[in-house]
Amino acid sequence: MKKASIVSIGNEILSGQTIDTNASWLGGKLLEIGTPVVSSYTVGDDIDAIVRSLKLAGDDAELVLITGGLGPTDDDLTRQGFAKFFGTELLLQNELLRKIEDFFAKRNLQMPAKNKIQAYIPAGAKALVNNLGTAPGIMAEISGRLFAVMPGVPSEMKQMFEELVLPELLQLLDGRAVVVKKLRCFGTGESNIAEMLGSLMNRGRNPLINCTASYSVITLHIIATAEDRDKAQRMAERDEKILTELLGELVYGTGRQTLAEVVGEKLAQQNKTIAVAESCTGGTLAKLLTDIPGASGYFTHGWITYSNAAKTSQLGVPADLIEDYGAVSEQTAAAMARCARKKAGTAFAIGITGIAGPSGGSEQKPVGLVYISVDSANGCETRHFIFSHVRIQAKRRDRDSIRLHAAQTALNMLRLKLQI
Amino acid sequence: MKKASIVSIGNEILSGQTIDTNASWLGGKLLEIGTPVVSSYTVGDDIDAIVRSLKLAGDDAELVLITGGLGPTDDDLTRQGFAKFFGTELLLQNELLRKIEDFFAKRNLQMPAKNKIQAYIPAGAKALVNNLGTAPGIMAEISGRLFAVMPGVPSEMKQMFEELVLPELLQLLDGRAVVVKKLRCFGTGESNIAEMLGSLMNRGRNPLINCTASYSVITLHIIATAEDRDKAQRMAERDEKILTELLGELVYGTGRQTLAEVVGEKLAQQNKTIAVAESCTGGTLAKLLTDIPGASGYFTHGWITYSNAAKTSQLGVPADLIEDYGAVSEQTAAAMARCARKKAGTAFAIGITGIAGPSGGSEQKPVGLVYISVDSANGCETRHFIFSHVRIQAKRRDRDSIRLHAAQTALNMLRLKLQI
Repeated sequence: MKKASIVSIGNEILSGQTIDTNASWLGGKLLEIGTPVVSSYTVGDDIDAIVRSLKLAGDDAELVLITGGLGPTDDDLTRQGFAKFFGTELLLQNELLRKIEDFFAKRNLQMPAKNKIQAYIPAGAKALVNNLGTAPGIMAEISGRLFAVMPGVPSEMKQMFEELVLPELLQLLDGRAVVVKKLRCFGTGESNIAEMLGSLMNRGRNPLINCTASYSVITLHIIATAEDRDKAQRMAERDEKILTELLGELVYGTGRQTLAEVVGEKLAQQNKTIAVAESCTGGTLAKLLTDIPGASGYFTHGWITYSNAAKTSQLGVPADLIEDYGAVSEQTAAAMARCARKKAGTAFAIGITGIAGPSGGSEQKPVGLVYISVDSANGCETRHFIFSHVRIQAKRRDRDSIRLHAAQTALNMLRLKLQI
Repeated sequence: MKKASIVSIGNEILSGQTIDTNASWLGGKLLEIGTPVVSSYTVGDDIDAIVRSLKLAGDDAELVLITGGLGPTDDDLTRQGFAKFFGTELLLQNELLRKIEDFFAKRNLQMPAKNKIQAYIPAGAKALVNNLGTAPGIMAEISGRLFAVMPGVPSEMKQMFEELVLPELLQLLDGRAVVVKKLRCFGTGESNIAEMLGSLMNRGRNPLINCTASYSVITLHIIATAEDRDKAQRMAERDEKILTELLGELVYGTGRQTLAEVVGEKLAQQNKTIAVAESCTGGTLAKLLTDIPGASGYFTHGWITYSNAAKTSQLGVPADLIEDYGAVSEQTAAAMARCARKKAGTAFAIGITGIAGPSGGSEQKPVGLVYISVDSANGCETRHFIFSHVRIQAKRRDRDSIRLHAAQTALNMLRLKLQI
């Protein structure tokens, strides 16, 4: 099996001004094609440090991915470092220079003189065209090892990797084709999913099934390897079907879909609308829904009734109901949802009330207790949750986490009602 | 000047399942005390790889900070790797074992047998007590270089660094004291601030002034070094005063304060309340305000009037005003703010309407155009902005960025009204 090593270049990464998300993103992409990253180096903008890290990375792995330091200013030294490591000179490539000049011309700008350096590539190496910016990448094979240098700007790096580097890598993988599919799940934990899948998740299996978790969304990666793409595709699709059947309604989507995207798609397809009435989540649910371009097609009204008075005056939740049961109660959540749907005239409405903390909790109603209600023509369903699995140290993060989990859980309840 | 190198250990970092925020956080902390990080290594859970990375890091710098791989399971090998590098055996420290047993006992749990390994420390090294978890850290001096191993869990690492490692480092800095102060600014770009500060930002100056930017919030780090703490403190305070005067109302706070925190504090102090009426930001502003614990003391009502009908029915914005000027207009923003303040009975109300994209823009009203209005007893101020400096490729990120900038800018307008 081929291995990979990553080199990130930039003073701003070492000093903590920029978090290196490129290395992590590349690690995930390489995992998907069954090529483990065995080491990762970060160095500053310094020619000797760059040369040394390229040597180390080349000792570790057959595939070395390098990001950063391709900008036009004097402190961008990756081109020079790579040329020194490669043992050649930088040569001006006129075609690249024209592309960079074009980039500025299209924006009615004159190319600053500094940018000319970006058209220089080490002799004998291949330039990788950058369609999103002015920094071309560099690719070269050295003693049977593939080195690819990409810009540090994440969007530019990602496009260059997927369009120009990945196809080369797949060829390198002993001519075998790899197809990756992702299933996105919500509603249970990683260990539960592992139990449900049993031996399907064994390490030696092909397709290989990996599981990652982020904010309660669990992503299953199905990585099928075969002699040709068609066969790998068929293997991945077969597993996708098996997993989807085993996990049932826990699976909400594929690829990189978010819950809000899937819910939005279903609402749009079914020509239905949604309103929200939030208390403890304070706009988090509305924000998730409206993060999606085109949300105005189904999301019309939101209320953040943070005070009891607002619940009564703006939504019409009876003051004595809040008095009798408390603002954090099944009754109040249900009344918020019902009143919101009536006022907005939407097909669905969600009401959320709870205790996000850090203060305000009691023994009977602890921090993390949240009531979520979904109202529709078919009636009103209210459930309660205690989001207490979050860490208890960083108080601010607990609050954020409880609010995000509550909003995601509300989206999931709505999703299950939108299944046909 | 002393230099530092960072080693991050864990397969989950290499495979991209975890983004290594520890290295970045440590890089920032070390920058603050004037100790640059010159290299950073990431390796998997493998004894030989760990030993090699420790050697490389020790060659690079006088100070080596290591995180991760101190857990109780078989794939946590940092203890063993460090002992091999150090050339000694792991020894059971009974006092540590009792602390770990206590950790479980306090939670009414029996210590799993696996956790006993965490009480083993390389002979000759010092254990660092972990008050938040079961993994003690390790510290040792080797050939005049300081090595400190900390857990990978960020909250545990941060506490251990600040309480046990940082004091040792400060002693190492040739006995000189370092005091760091931070000023947080909003309302202009980094290059503008650099121009306003001129020679104050020169590299050789003491205090050293660094500038970092994140989502339009600019942080100035004032790093004063002197023979003793009192003197460093006085130097930092003097610069803080100079910078605050030079930058005027661009400075909104100190330390890690967010705009929402500062606005919340001012509202609470002045016993004033706020309501928001959002269109394009769809809850982002309300979320920022309610991210702050205790926001219920000043934030009472929020409306997300995403549709024109909602603007009219819920806020009372006249339908013909929207018809005449458009939903994205100065007039609509002002009417949203005025109506929201009237309905909520608050001291302030903010109205936001704009085009977050990716579609919906025109030549006259491009994507990124946002009107923000703040209404109070002193009248209504409406401003418009074109948040067009964001990247034009990743459409989803543009939308997120425009929405976040708009919400932050609204908070900043409110902050300036709350200055006394």
